[in-house]
Amino acid sequence: MKLATMRDRSPDGQLLVVSRELQRAVKATGVANSLLAAIESWPVCEPRLRALSVALERGEIDGALDFTSADLASPLPRTWQWLDASTFHSHSVLLARAFGQAFDTNGARPLMYQGGSDDFVGPHQDMPLPSEADGIDFEAEVAVVVDRVPMGTPAADALGHIKLVMLANDASLRSFGAAEKKTGFGWILAKPATSFSPVAVTPDELGAAWRDGRMHLPVRVAWNGREFGRPDAGAMGFGFHELLAHAAYSRNLSAGTIVGSGTVSNADYATVGSGCIAELRAIEMAERGGAVTEYMRFGDRVRIEVLDAAGRSVFGAIDQRVVAASAGASR
Amino acid sequence: MKLATMRDRSPDGQLLVVSRELQRAVKATGVANSLLAAIESWPVCEPRLRALSVALERGEIDGALDFTSADLASPLPRTWQWLDASTFHSHSVLLARAFGQAFDTNGARPLMYQGGSDDFVGPHQDMPLPSEADGIDFEAEVAVVVDRVPMGTPAADALGHIKLVMLANDASLRSFGAAEKKTGFGWILAKPATSFSPVAVTPDELGAAWRDGRMHLPVRVAWNGREFGRPDAGAMGFGFHELLAHAAYSRNLSAGTIVGSGTVSNADYATVGSGCIAELRAIEMAERGGAVTEYMRFGDRVRIEVLDAAGRSVFGAIDQRVVAASAGASR
Repeated sequence: MKLATMRDRSPDGQLLVVSRELQRAVKATGVANSLLAAIESWPVCEPRLRALSVALERGEIDGALDFTSADLASPLPRTWQWLDASTFHSHSVLLARAFGQAFDTNGARPLMYQGGSDDFVGPHQDMPLPSEADGIDFEAEVAVVVDRVPMGTPAADALGHIKLVMLANDASLRSFGAAEKKTGFGWILAKPATSFSPVAVTPDELGAAWRDGRMHLPVRVAWNGREFGRPDAGAMGFGFHELLAHAAYSRNLSAGTIVGSGTVSNADYATVGSGCIAELRAIEMAERGGAVTEYMRFGDRVRIEVLDAAGRSVFGAIDQRVVAASAGASR
Repeated sequence: MKLATMRDRSPDGQLLVVSRELQRAVKATGVANSLLAAIESWPVCEPRLRALSVALERGEIDGALDFTSADLASPLPRTWQWLDASTFHSHSVLLARAFGQAFDTNGARPLMYQGGSDDFVGPHQDMPLPSEADGIDFEAEVAVVVDRVPMGTPAADALGHIKLVMLANDASLRSFGAAEKKTGFGWILAKPATSFSPVAVTPDELGAAWRDGRMHLPVRVAWNGREFGRPDAGAMGFGFHELLAHAAYSRNLSAGTIVGSGTVSNADYATVGSGCIAELRAIEMAERGGAVTEYMRFGDRVRIEVLDAAGRSVFGAIDQRVVAASAGASR
């Protein structure tokens, strides 16, 4: 089942059930107005949404919407919690080296920070940002949405709480990254609003590519129309079930909590490229003695997409520009 | 005006307008069901809530509730964002020394992390936690609730966005604090659910004690019935307006965002005591060569309160126990 959210006057948007081929959609108004409301009552809503999905695939929905022209929000335009990990070893090692900092492994625990979850950007919306001088970067990630995960849930029990999978562009302002990391408090200035893929899918949509709490598919990243990377998301050092158990050690995770993988990265980056500019710059520093690639300029566009084994887009593509906030870009 | 939230079946609770003396209350059902809904429509709701407040003070509300026996949630039982700063210089210096870490001033910028905002604990509810071995601590803080603060709002314009002031018990698990700080990612395990005071008050309730974006009153902390500290909250190194401008540099702050002061601390801690156990332990390390005071045990109680110049409780008291999560403590 594939779900999306159409922008409307409400901050949580209008929930849509979307066809597998991402061509048609139907409003889920009769089930739940918003995805947040649906995930908060998932046992009731899921079967009813699946029934809509089946009817849509069979062509039994009169007046289905054209999904390709829908004005989309992120599947959850806002939610109660966004916890983003950093689980790709090659990324952590490269970034730590570039920032001139030791790579702290946090013992045997995942690295995880809490990001802003109150104001996500739609997958095709412009991202208004304060200044090109801040080192604007994209970050291609995989993310999951969970129902309520009670405090103390072990990893073995956590997998079943993962209800949806999606992609993220966890935009970053690198000029603040190292300084904020050094404080130990995590990132505020360095992490503007995140964006998620047009659709969130139930794990069964991924078939055999969903295993070990990971999505074993390459994430394709293009910058201004040119391929930038296609690292495989299966290389996570921790599975999402382990990230959930970590996060839930001392807190309940409310339904609608999103957990991210961190920037997808592979050890054979020379072949597959990277999921963010900072990593490429780190590679350039190591191999050429200095970073060559500059960060994004206003007007630049990033595209993040995953194709299944048959070459079909699973989540639709995040495809968006960064623009000057001062230009009055409205969202 | 003083506002509170009574627990009911809805996750956002029932908004109450409370009398100045904290004796009586009236449901604000006709204005907004929840404080979150009210703060999201503040220009419409505030005058109507104030009218209720005036009627309550005049004794014109038939069947007013007995506030002293109300089953309270935090004023916002959950919200979209909780950004907690660390603005008291003496606290930062002492903690850094105790953790064996350099005190990073973040240049001229405030120190701030994002905490869980999806599941706050009521001011008199037990706090269920996984283990006494985790170094359970309280942290007495001041916090503000804002309406929407657009990205790029300067400090000079930020003060007007502060709609409510309250107290916080930002509970911490110190065993994870130093390790998570070292990762640079901020705190996940070290920061279980936060608790806020029975009432949130509009800044005018503080009179002359509200100035320079600070509340110039001592925060009284008692641990198991014994005074632990009464540091003055006016000693913040940054005012709340400056914290808001910092947080809003690269993000919009949604209505309902809570910003915290960090643990209240004064340079004359020898006289006024501390707002958390970790600070007292740091003082003991410096003065006696080792920490003597142990962290909280299950069943321990903390009380956090502020009295005005006339000795009246401004916010009511946070007064709660920490308990074992495994004991099935329900919230």
